[in-house]
Formats: sequence, structure tokens, C-alpha cells
Amino acid sequence: MEKIKIAVLGLGTLGQGIITMLNTQREQLAKNAGCPIELGRVLEKYLTKKRGIPLPEGMCTNRWEDILNDDSIQIIVETIGGIEPARTYILQALQGGKSVVTANKDLLAAYGQELFRAAREAKRDLYFEASVGGAIPIIGPLRQSLIADRLSQVMGIINGTTNYVLTKMEEENSSFEKALQEAQDSGFAEADPTADIEGHDAARKAAILATLAFHSQVNFNDVYAEGISKITKEDMALARNLGYRIKLLAICRNDGEVIEARVHPALIPLDHPLSGVRDIYNAIFVKGPELGETMFYGVGTGQLPSASAVLGDVVAVARNIRYDCQGRLNMVENRILPILPIEKVKTRFFLRLLLKDEAGALAQVTDILGQWGVSIARLVQIVLDSGDAELVFVTHEVANGQMQQAVAKIRQLAVTKKVLTLLRVEDSN
Amino acid sequence: MEKIKIAVLGLGTLGQGIITMLNTQREQLAKNAGCPIELGRVLEKYLTKKRGIPLPEGMCTNRWEDILNDDSIQIIVETIGGIEPARTYILQALQGGKSVVTANKDLLAAYGQELFRAAREAKRDLYFEASVGGAIPIIGPLRQSLIADRLSQVMGIINGTTNYVLTKMEEENSSFEKALQEAQDSGFAEADPTADIEGHDAARKAAILATLAFHSQVNFNDVYAEGISKITKEDMALARNLGYRIKLLAICRNDGEVIEARVHPALIPLDHPLSGVRDIYNAIFVKGPELGETMFYGVGTGQLPSASAVLGDVVAVARNIRYDCQGRLNMVENRILPILPIEKVKTRFFLRLLLKDEAGALAQVTDILGQWGVSIARLVQIVLDSGDAELVFVTHEVANGQMQQAVAKIRQLAVTKKVLTLLRVEDSN
Repeated sequence: MEKIKIAVLGLGTLGQGIITMLNTQREQLAKNAGCPIELGRVLEKYLTKKRGIPLPEGMCTNRWEDILNDDSIQIIVETIGGIEPARTYILQALQGGKSVVTANKDLLAAYGQELFRAAREAKRDLYFEASVGGAIPIIGPLRQSLIADRLSQVMGIINGTTNYVLTKMEEENSSFEKALQEAQDSGFAEADPTADIEGHDAARKAAILATLAFHSQVNFNDVYAEGISKITKEDMALARNLGYRIKLLAICRNDGEVIEARVHPALIPLDHPLSGVRDIYNAIFVKGPELGETMFYGVGTGQLPSASAVLGDVVAVARNIRYDCQGRLNMVENRILPILPIEKVKTRFFLRLLLKDEAGALAQVTDILGQWGVSIARLVQIVLDSGDAELVFVTHEVANGQMQQAVAKIRQLAVTKKVLTLLRVEDSN
Repeated sequence: MEKIKIAVLGLGTLGQGIITMLNTQREQLAKNAGCPIELGRVLEKYLTKKRGIPLPEGMCTNRWEDILNDDSIQIIVETIGGIEPARTYILQALQGGKSVVTANKDLLAAYGQELFRAAREAKRDLYFEASVGGAIPIIGPLRQSLIADRLSQVMGIINGTTNYVLTKMEEENSSFEKALQEAQDSGFAEADPTADIEGHDAARKAAILATLAFHSQVNFNDVYAEGISKITKEDMALARNLGYRIKLLAICRNDGEVIEARVHPALIPLDHPLSGVRDIYNAIFVKGPELGETMFYGVGTGQLPSASAVLGDVVAVARNIRYDCQGRLNMVENRILPILPIEKVKTRFFLRLLLKDEAGALAQVTDILGQWGVSIARLVQIVLDSGDAELVFVTHEVANGQMQQAVAKIRQLAVTKKVLTLLRVEDSN
């Protein structure tokens, strides 16, 4: 039986995990692919660097051409990450007749359309299960089992680092800084955690999910992103008292005319299934008029879960090569639905204000809210020892632009000492 | 562009849902399949029966040969259910060069091996996403995304009717009979609910899941099944006091040597994610050494969710036909791992006894438990108004056969008025 040779680009954590599993699962992979899957070549910039896994002499190269021009290699597994040189390598591989498996969410979220078109034109596969949710199978179902439905919503917790931080803050009453430090110490946050904390990582994944779910190209730049660094433990405690938990959510909606795509912290009801998703776990809800609602849950990151997802893709592509049906799942050229700007998105809000203890202070605030069409669902007033008053509002739905303008006006009031918090509330599921 | 014609066998709820969605999703199905998908023929025994959906003149036939011999029909969608004539039709369709999509769990759980072999030999597709979990994509991921892992466990709530009944019993303090009546009135239970209530439906689905997850044929007869009809609201309240909820679970395990496959009510901890799965929802946990744990959740039944799953399969098969790669996912001939008999399965137990109020009664019971190797984790004694004593035990792990023998001995004691309840406890997840 023919064997299928793959090349792994990059020897970081994921690359090493894949090579390890190629060995440990050799028999199972061969059985399911219908032929042996072998490591043909590894691309690695620093040839002399010590690695945790043994590789045969001559397996590594630092010249991409060695792999691109090697006709015996049929599948490229890209684990370099980032935009360049990954983008160029993937495009050249597809044009050169090789299929590609990648976990590169940065690249897919920025250049998805270009990559999907290249795969389509080359009639080769581009698979990317590990780009979202680690080993949680979400990309496959969106491209296959769920394809008969007109999906209206994808919503979830898709960043493990921020979920870990928020869980620690809530359960251990930690400050954001302390919880982040703990996450870094445990290896759940990068030394530079910006992409996670500011919601950019989740926004990239949201772009990929929305593109697949709605058959309309959504890029990273289309996704509104707001991070968790301003959340305080006081916010959490107050939210909790009102029956909510604060989570970093990705929310993508499609009403057939326009797409909403946003990532931000939000209050969700304690009895919502997403509110029970703790630590580094991810969960994604998919909704459609026919299927109803289905949820996918699991650890969204990690060396072996991600390697497992990548190798699931490798097996699928190997089957496609054996049956000569590569490119079968490639997306047709998408129609492009417009993206609703965040100002026009309607949500409920959680607003905390610190006001001077003056007669008529509340009236001034509610007056402005009323002028901007913000109606109040709940109001809690807390008199502080300082004599100042803290007001906690939960509003009904209002366009984000109007709410922002109302808050800007409130900030200018003489009675306003501080706008403590402005967060969205998501409870329509 | 060529179109692909399908025939729908059976015009029940599911069949009608599929035909309806073929119309409402016409454009989306065509776009994703790469060509139009059209209804070619419908097989229906009672041609004159009034149906909820309009069909063109001559679309229905009651002669299977009209469809089998029609070469323009490439995909058979079987929604008749039950063993015969569905089995014969599917086998003949495959042998005749047609691919098959079915939701027929009874048939797959009893004759899976025969059907899989027929598909393999004919090099045609046999897809069955809707056979387990309605629109929850679980079959697809087990056959594809999760294929690189050596799965060790599949566990879940996979029968909506019983979960609805148990939810009502717990939340409304209903008796089993009353809750079942309510389920029937709401259309969530059949007029004859035996297959659901006695765990047979869940056992069929468990057989299918175990076969796919462990690459070893598991049939309905291999799955130990025990239903929920003996559960009382007292059991539920006592379990709750001890920190548990009672659910009908399907549990399939594979240690590489032997397979465990069983369906029975069990106590699960309140903080276990499955304990929060209410009403007609289903949830399935899949575990493997590399991927960790992932869960799939959603409504496990219903006309449109199931039709949506069937049509997802139809699109996949249509793509395969266009690319001439049918049979690609067919299972290789499985090795057959032995099934561990229930007597040898080790679990924890929840045991309720009604004893006469006599000195030494408890000692007699614990003596027998000790003789059979049953060690006690928790014990609650309740003195009843009658003067009798109720004892509630939670045991450590013990082989089911030993526990059964201990309980048989306890039943014979003169001090034993009644063995009220014997249920398993699952908290190792």
C-alpha cells in the first residue's frame, strides 16, 4: 500500500506534539487513513537548537524549497503561526499541488479569503480544525453535519486564558492582576498576554466561526473586540448579587441581511450553561432554525488536544488523497454580508456610577439616560461610607452608540465622580 | 450542472420533515453540495393516506422495486425505522450501487456489522448522523475529527424521553407515573414508551457510539440495559440530600482489552456537567488520552433537528458522488474486543433498605456486605414513624455481581422488610 508523507513546518510545542503522536498513534492513523502516514520532512529555522524529541539525521531543513519541491510530500502541516512566512508557504504549497492542515487562526482570520480561494483554485484541501477550540470538533461539524441548516448564531467562550483568569477572580476573589499572574505561573497565559486579554485571540476565532457558519467572509478586523483588563472583583460581586456571572463572550449573529460579530466581557445569567464553563474550558453554542441549539464543550487548548485535532485533519486529507477527492469541502465563493457596526448593535448594559451625595443627582443621570433612549430594568443604590453614592443600573436593550453617548454625557455631570463600569448583559441567550 | 436525486423511504414525521426542508433549504443545499438535490421518489405503503405535505402526482410509490431499479436515484434516505423491511431495502440499495442515509438506530444496533460490510463491499456511503442525538453532531466527529485519538470513554444522556421524565419527577416532585403521563401529553413520550423507559433506545444508541469510538463492533445485545420505572421521588430526594441527581446514563468504556457498555439510572454529583442537562436535552462526553474531554450537547430528538442531521448527511454523500469518492469513510473490518459482563463491572452503589427496628439489625446487614467485599462510604439511618428504620448506604466500588449477591442475602434476612432501592453511583466521571 502507498504511504502518505507529510511535512511539519515549525518545531514548537504543537509541531513536537504532532510528531510525537505520529509515532504513538501510528497504527490507528494508518488504519483510519487506509495507508501509513509518515513524517517526510520538518522545517525548522534553527537547526542546531536542542529539541525534546529525537528526529532522524537529515529530517530537519531550514530551506522551505526542500519541502516545496519534494513531490513525495503530499500534506503540509503548518504550525509556525503568525502571518509571514506561514501565508506564503501555504499559498505556495497549495499552488504546488499539496494539501494543507493548519492551526493558524491569525492567518485564517486575516487572509482566510485568499487562502480559501487558493485551495479552491488548486483543488487541494485546506483543513483547520485546531484553529478554534483545540480538540473540540467545531470546524468539522460547521463544514459538514450542520451544513443543511441556516445558522443564525454562534456564541461562546473561546479563549481559555481569559476564562481561567475570570474564574480565579470570581472563585478566589482575586484582582485581575493577581489572577493573570497565577495564569502565567501555571502556563495558561503567555509572557505577553495581550492577544488573549484584549480579546484579539477570541476575535480571530470568532471571525473563522462566523465565516463558516454564515457562508460569508468575516475577517478579524470586522470583529469588535474588547478585553477583560478593566474588570474588577467588585464588578463580579455585584453581578453575582444580581444573578449574573462575567465571562468573555464571542457573539456572532446573522439575520440573513447583516452580521454581528463581537467579543467582549458580558454578564450572563447564572443558570445559562455558559456560566458554568470554568477555567481553561471552552464552549460554543450554535443555533439554527431547524437544529435548535447545540453546544460543543472541552479544553480549548493544549499540546496534545491540538495535535489530536491536527492529526484528525491529516487523516481526513489522507483519505481524500487516496480517493482523489481533495478540494471537496472547499468553500464556494462566499457572498459578503455587511457587518453591523458596534454602535448599531443592541444590547443590555450593566452600568456602575459613583456620584456625589447631592440632592437630584440620580434625577440628572436618569434624565440623560432617558434622553438617549436608555430605559432602566433594575437599579441598586449603595450609600458608601464616604457619603458618596454608588448606582448600579441594568438597562433594557439599546443601541451601543446611544449608550456610549449617554455615558459620555453622564461623565460630564458635576455630580459624577466616576463612571466605574460599563459592561454588556447577554441574557436572551 | 448535474443534479442528484434522492428517494425518501417512509412518510412519517421524519420523512415529511426531510421533504419540507428539501424545499425550504433548496438553495443552501445546492450551494453546499455543489449541485441541486432533488426529491426523485417517495416510498409509502399507504398511497391514499392524507399527508401534511403536498407531493407531485406520481411521486409516491408503494413498490420498492420502482426505486431500486431507478438508476437516476443515487441516494436512498431510509426513515421507515425498525428492522424489516428497512434492512433488506438498505442492503439491496447498497448492492445496487446507491448510497444510503439513515436514522435507524434499531437496525444499526442490531445489524450494523452486516450493513457496514455491505457498504464497504459496494464502495458506497452509509451515513447515519441522525441515529444518535438528533441534530447534535456526534457521529461525524467520531468518524472524522476525533479519529486520531484512542478514545477511552463515551458517556452521556442519550434518551430525551427519560430525561424529561426524571426532570419532571425531580423538579415538580412528581411520581414516575405522573411524569410519564405528562411526557406523553406533551408529545415527548410514545403511546408505548417501553423502549425509552426500559433503556432500550439508549442501549441502541450506546451500541452505535461504542462501535464508532472503539473501532470494535458492539451490538444492542452487548449493552446491559436497565430502565427508570422503579425510580421513586423518595430516591430522588435522598440522592439530592447526599449531593447527587439521578439520570439515565449510557456508559461505554474501553481499556484496550475489554469493553464496558451499559445503560442504567445512576446517581451523579450535582456539580457534574451531566447533572445540569434537563428536559429533552441530550449530552455526550467523549474522553481520550490526547484530546482530554469534550462534550456535545443539544436537543436529541424532534422532526426538524433530525431532518437537519439527515440532510447534512445527504449533502456530504452528494459531494462524495460528485467527487466519485463514496465509501471513503467506511469502517474497516473491526477487531472485536470482548464485552465485560455486567457482573464484573465495578461501580459504586446507592442502597436503601427498610429494616425492622431490632437490636443488631444493622450489624447483620453490614456483616453480609463485608462478606461480599462491599465497603461502605456513607451511611444514613432514618427512624420512621412506624418504628422501622430506613438505611441509606453509598458504597465504594465493587463488582456488580458481588453487590447483587450481597443484596440477595440481605433480602433473606428476617430483619429486612424491604430492599427499597439499588442504584449505581457514577462519580469518577
